[in-house]
Amino acid sequence: MTDVITVSIDGMGGDNAPDMIVGGIELASSHADDVRYLLFGDEAQLQPLLDQHPKAKAVCEIRHTTDVVTMDDKPTAALRSGKNSSMRLAIDAIKSGEASAVVSAGNTGALMAMATVVLRMLPGISRPAIVTSFPTQRGDSVMLDLGANIECDAENLVQFAVMGEVFARNELDIEQPSIGILNVGVEGLKGNDSVKKAAAILQASDLPIKFHGFIEGDDIGKGTVDVIVTDGFTGNIALKTAEGTAKMITFFLKKFLVGSLISKIGALIARPALERFRAHFDPRRYNGAMLVGLNGVCVKSHGGTDALGFAHAIEAGVKLVRRDFNEVIKEDLGHLIAENEINAEKPDNQEPQSATA
Amino acid sequence: MTDVITVSIDGMGGDNAPDMIVGGIELASSHADDVRYLLFGDEAQLQPLLDQHPKAKAVCEIRHTTDVVTMDDKPTAALRSGKNSSMRLAIDAIKSGEASAVVSAGNTGALMAMATVVLRMLPGISRPAIVTSFPTQRGDSVMLDLGANIECDAENLVQFAVMGEVFARNELDIEQPSIGILNVGVEGLKGNDSVKKAAAILQASDLPIKFHGFIEGDDIGKGTVDVIVTDGFTGNIALKTAEGTAKMITFFLKKFLVGSLISKIGALIARPALERFRAHFDPRRYNGAMLVGLNGVCVKSHGGTDALGFAHAIEAGVKLVRRDFNEVIKEDLGHLIAENEINAEKPDNQEPQSATA
Repeated sequence: MTDVITVSIDGMGGDNAPDMIVGGIELASSHADDVRYLLFGDEAQLQPLLDQHPKAKAVCEIRHTTDVVTMDDKPTAALRSGKNSSMRLAIDAIKSGEASAVVSAGNTGALMAMATVVLRMLPGISRPAIVTSFPTQRGDSVMLDLGANIECDAENLVQFAVMGEVFARNELDIEQPSIGILNVGVEGLKGNDSVKKAAAILQASDLPIKFHGFIEGDDIGKGTVDVIVTDGFTGNIALKTAEGTAKMITFFLKKFLVGSLISKIGALIARPALERFRAHFDPRRYNGAMLVGLNGVCVKSHGGTDALGFAHAIEAGVKLVRRDFNEVIKEDLGHLIAENEINAEKPDNQEPQSATA
Repeated sequence: MTDVITVSIDGMGGDNAPDMIVGGIELASSHADDVRYLLFGDEAQLQPLLDQHPKAKAVCEIRHTTDVVTMDDKPTAALRSGKNSSMRLAIDAIKSGEASAVVSAGNTGALMAMATVVLRMLPGISRPAIVTSFPTQRGDSVMLDLGANIECDAENLVQFAVMGEVFARNELDIEQPSIGILNVGVEGLKGNDSVKKAAAILQASDLPIKFHGFIEGDDIGKGTVDVIVTDGFTGNIALKTAEGTAKMITFFLKKFLVGSLISKIGALIARPALERFRAHFDPRRYNGAMLVGLNGVCVKSHGGTDALGFAHAIEAGVKLVRRDFNEVIKEDLGHLIAENEINAEKPDNQEPQSATA
């Protein structure tokens, strides 16, 4: 792999931008020497930072603009008046072919709206979805959608299943990822119409994917499946609930451990193990959610992250570029489209019965 | 409070019934001497267990029946052919006035269907909801609905808010509980129509409740509000996700602590603190979800719990009876009905704009 990969960066997006952006590029550059960056933003702020970060300076080209999309901008306003913003220009660089991936820690709604308008959807996909990986008892899993689509029909969920499968295969190096649909029970009778119909479609399909069936909320932590498919309302709440629970539990662990002198001594002795425990759940390790379904690699970093977290978001995007993710997903979506055409000729699948709750 | 409280018990419901049922009554009887039990189930199994549990034996009256509702029975089947089941007869005892609360660890769908048919809804309530308390960083909170209603409109959510408020006040001893609606963002623009409309109704209402507004998934663990209102699909998944995350984290904590001899020594020294930590999240402490909205106190214990967990479920029900919960909630629902009648005369509330995701 001697080709240079170019990543375009929204230099002004995120709570700690542009400091953590340049810091993140510096860190990412220590791990890969074949990546170059187009850094969009205010040169007066970016140049002094690059002067302090020699590794980043060596691989960055500043593209000056003073326009920024703020965290409070509505997507429609960003679309209308953000055409020269660092976020928009960074996305444009994918469209023009100058860069192979874009990374932004800015306003999610604006990023999604702009990326959708500029990059367009992949064939066979109606809406982009947000996907990320996270730790489970068994290893890493991915979940989608995490908030791009508040209401989803069965077709959306089936598309998420196929996109999530390609994402897990390439980002997590899982040969044949298993897929589950998040539901309130594992029996076919349970759940809303969308999940029941999506499960019926996936069960009946000839797609080359490993469909596990329904999973419940506690299967997320167990790691029962590699890919968790759900609507954006439920997925956003489930992921944030998991994050909040993890924080609450470590809060109480600390509280009980500092509760007495004896336990403090024990905790001090066990400190290396407790540090490894903490590092295992470090949210920065999992920073970088992807907007899948777009014709291009678009990575959303958490807005409140630091340099280490932003470096992880860059590396997630670079990994997908190395795997030629955009071409792989197009090919896999081709199967979905072909199957849909075949299914359209078949009589309608029998719908499962309604639950009598 | 010298009146004797009578609780009817489904003696055959749950994975470990009837052993854990009788064991649970034994434990609960150690904490309260003014509670009597009608124990429905197979006398041939129950009598020998009571002979081993003298405290339970002293306060239980067996009501013999050999019919049981199994975990696999569909609600409709249970309704049709379970009229002499231990579950149904235990519910009937509330209706007849023989008992003030019913506790069952059996099939949730069957319990809800039977309780709805026998006890009927409270005035102003369209559907029962499942509510339980759980630990947060700040103290205990309650969430509803946890799975009784897969799809909910704004009216349902408003009813949940009022019922959850009364439940939190009486079960958690919170003077004026704060109420939040679970959503994918805290801005008014975000979310589906049901949550936006429910928030608008609660914001505009003169109900004597403390409405916080929207909360996100991570606010559950933070304990941002006392009462979390959500539809049964999202609530079920959020609660189970939290449980699964808690299990995953304690799994890794243990794994890292036994990873080296040094850390094992540290953990041994800190053991009392680690035990207190574990006890704090013991799910048995939070066992006992209530079906609110019914004309009677109906508590659902986790099916897989043990005697200690079942004792907690009994105590949750008894506490509500002591507070005269069923009368208090009727009175509070009266406010809701009165306000609805007033609102019906007002012009329609303006609906908030749709989100442009």
